[in-house]
Amino acid sequence: MIYGFHPVRAALTSPRRELIRLYATEAAAARLAPEIAAKGIEMRVVPVEEIVARVGSEAVHQGVLLEARPLEPIDLSELPADGLVVVLDQVTDPHNVGAILRTAAAFGAAALVTTERHTPEFTGVLAKSASGGLEHVAIASVTNLARALGELGDMGYLRVGLDEEGSTTLEAATLHRPLALVLGAEGKGLRRLTRENCDVLARLDMPGAIKTLNVSNACAVALTIIAMRLAALR
Amino acid sequence: MIYGFHPVRAALTSPRRELIRLYATEAAAARLAPEIAAKGIEMRVVPVEEIVARVGSEAVHQGVLLEARPLEPIDLSELPADGLVVVLDQVTDPHNVGAILRTAAAFGAAALVTTERHTPEFTGVLAKSASGGLEHVAIASVTNLARALGELGDMGYLRVGLDEEGSTTLEAATLHRPLALVLGAEGKGLRRLTRENCDVLARLDMPGAIKTLNVSNACAVALTIIAMRLAALR
Repeated sequence: MIYGFHPVRAALTSPRRELIRLYATEAAAARLAPEIAAKGIEMRVVPVEEIVARVGSEAVHQGVLLEARPLEPIDLSELPADGLVVVLDQVTDPHNVGAILRTAAAFGAAALVTTERHTPEFTGVLAKSASGGLEHVAIASVTNLARALGELGDMGYLRVGLDEEGSTTLEAATLHRPLALVLGAEGKGLRRLTRENCDVLARLDMPGAIKTLNVSNACAVALTIIAMRLAALR
Repeated sequence: MIYGFHPVRAALTSPRRELIRLYATEAAAARLAPEIAAKGIEMRVVPVEEIVARVGSEAVHQGVLLEARPLEPIDLSELPADGLVVVLDQVTDPHNVGAILRTAAAFGAAALVTTERHTPEFTGVLAKSASGGLEHVAIASVTNLARALGELGDMGYLRVGLDEEGSTTLEAATLHRPLALVLGAEGKGLRRLTRENCDVLARLDMPGAIKTLNVSNACAVALTIIAMRLAALR
């Protein structure tokens, strides 16, 4: 279930997405008419109450609800040789994971690597927060994160873990692509085995009174620093 | 009403905050014992149900609820001569404003400037998302944003508006402190009069498939670029 204009429009125009059925109010259907026509998907024009009945009254559905098959997860071996990926160590809040997907897509990240056991459903609230990011960032779902980081290392990826007790700041770290940015859950941080499988543990030294950021904001700050540092090398 | 460990601990230790009463479960009271003792606040140990009855079942209260008076808003004239401030043009979602406050506090911003008519309540969900940021970033609530930007200009503030159609990228813009970063609501962006009262309109050029960020993530990216550019000038 994907709802809201941005996520639904992105799914409708994604070549990777297998669609089932679209529910839309008359107004929403009119707004998405070009995408609907181009895709030739089965559509039901419904009263708004029918959408609320399916997604709940809390959801910001904007009159449109798409049923679609989940995107196929990819294997790590399919990652680009020169890529940028974001790795999540037990980050599960769907708002945060959605916001991370959106920001990762904006920075051109190829994939999000996450563990099967702690992967939220890539639907509903998460898809809404991702605002289309789900269509652009592949998901690699792994059983063992430490092993996956090992594999990324074998592929030449520089594995950079954000860690409050890192020995360097991210700004001062030597960076190169391909690069995997590894983020832990707020409060918990990175697990020991995750830390041990990173090449660099880097801190974000915040100048203000608050020292830690929300995980999606930490991701945004880190991707900005990485992008600026890599651009400066060119 | 402030709930959750981080926000409540920050409020308990803030010299600026006038407290009324604390409700806590036995476990939460034990965890906050040092701060409670130091402050000498009236406390009621209550069953968790009583907290839920006050904040609702959706709130992440962690067994602790503080009643406190709102912090006094400040006047623009009280802003530091060399400060960094964040200005919101009709950004109202409490999760986003809370996350912005937290990130602003982490970057050492002195204040958040917002309009009276579009200011969310600085309580509950917002205070939780701010995770203590509310105690470190002063709020300046103004009736007319264009006039407030004029006043900031008279004080020497460089007013930098984030705008998708800005004539420069933020990275390439010439920056100096004091600086006011001006953010509009997602989708709507900055209003015309807000744009006209900025010195610089700057874009964030995102390299990926998604071109716009969630407003709190956009704030995080912009503050990172500003911090790195200002540090490079030193």
